[in-house]
Amino acid sequence: MEIRTVDHVAMVVSDLDAALETYERLLGATVEVRETLEGQGVEAALLRAGDARLELICPLDTESGVARFLAARGPGLHHLALEVDDVAGALTELERQGARLVDSEPRRGLGGHEVAFVHPESLQGVLVEVVGRG
Amino acid sequence: MEIRTVDHVAMVVSDLDAALETYERLLGATVEVRETLEGQGVEAALLRAGDARLELICPLDTESGVARFLAARGPGLHHLALEVDDVAGALTELERQGARLVDSEPRRGLGGHEVAFVHPESLQGVLVEVVGRG
Repeated sequence: MEIRTVDHVAMVVSDLDAALETYERLLGATVEVRETLEGQGVEAALLRAGDARLELICPLDTESGVARFLAARGPGLHHLALEVDDVAGALTELERQGARLVDSEPRRGLGGHEVAFVHPESLQGVLVEVVGRG
Repeated sequence: MEIRTVDHVAMVVSDLDAALETYERLLGATVEVRETLEGQGVEAALLRAGDARLELICPLDTESGVARFLAARGPGLHHLALEVDDVAGALTELERQGARLVDSEPRRGLGGHEVAFVHPESLQGVLVEVVGRG
């Protein structure tokens, strides 16, 4: 699989407004997108700090995977997103190499890009998202 | 504070050789540096996948912060490293903005660069390292 670079790093927070204020004040980050993703039961914001993209994710209910993550582990790093040329091709290659996938096909993520998640059991507990930016 | 980009993303693993094999096979990553950091009680490897840098950290004893992290949370994402122009200047600015620092002065990290850690309580549970690459 051909990885281009780190696309973004995502963290789960319990209070999105408070977290945005902190990330803006301490890291000089600015908000690029803020969206409610109803299907996933979360509100998310994509921040920019220099060339770094940071995604803050906040659960809207107690049922979602993100809500369970927050309840079990507290706020903190959630997943690592890697930019690839071709998301579908990356999934084929990952499966061929024995990875367990969360998404067997690309779907639309924050900002409308193609994304797919690899199961953390395949990468020593790390949840990895592959992202295509075309 | 002026952030340039994501310098690297670090994960704690329980078996460094097995993790390296997995990251090489699934992500096409290659090892750039592998070092035992006696003072921190860990062995660490810096991997490259495209422009992305990934750091795998494995405890060598049961006493270090990394060992306690692994025991409490299992393997997974550990910290986010952000590249800045000036590590000392970033620390001054972070303190001025009310951040709690782990390192009040820059120290030498993996590969010999200046680094310093910000306490995770200041960034909603996320351990952030600032790195200067000159």
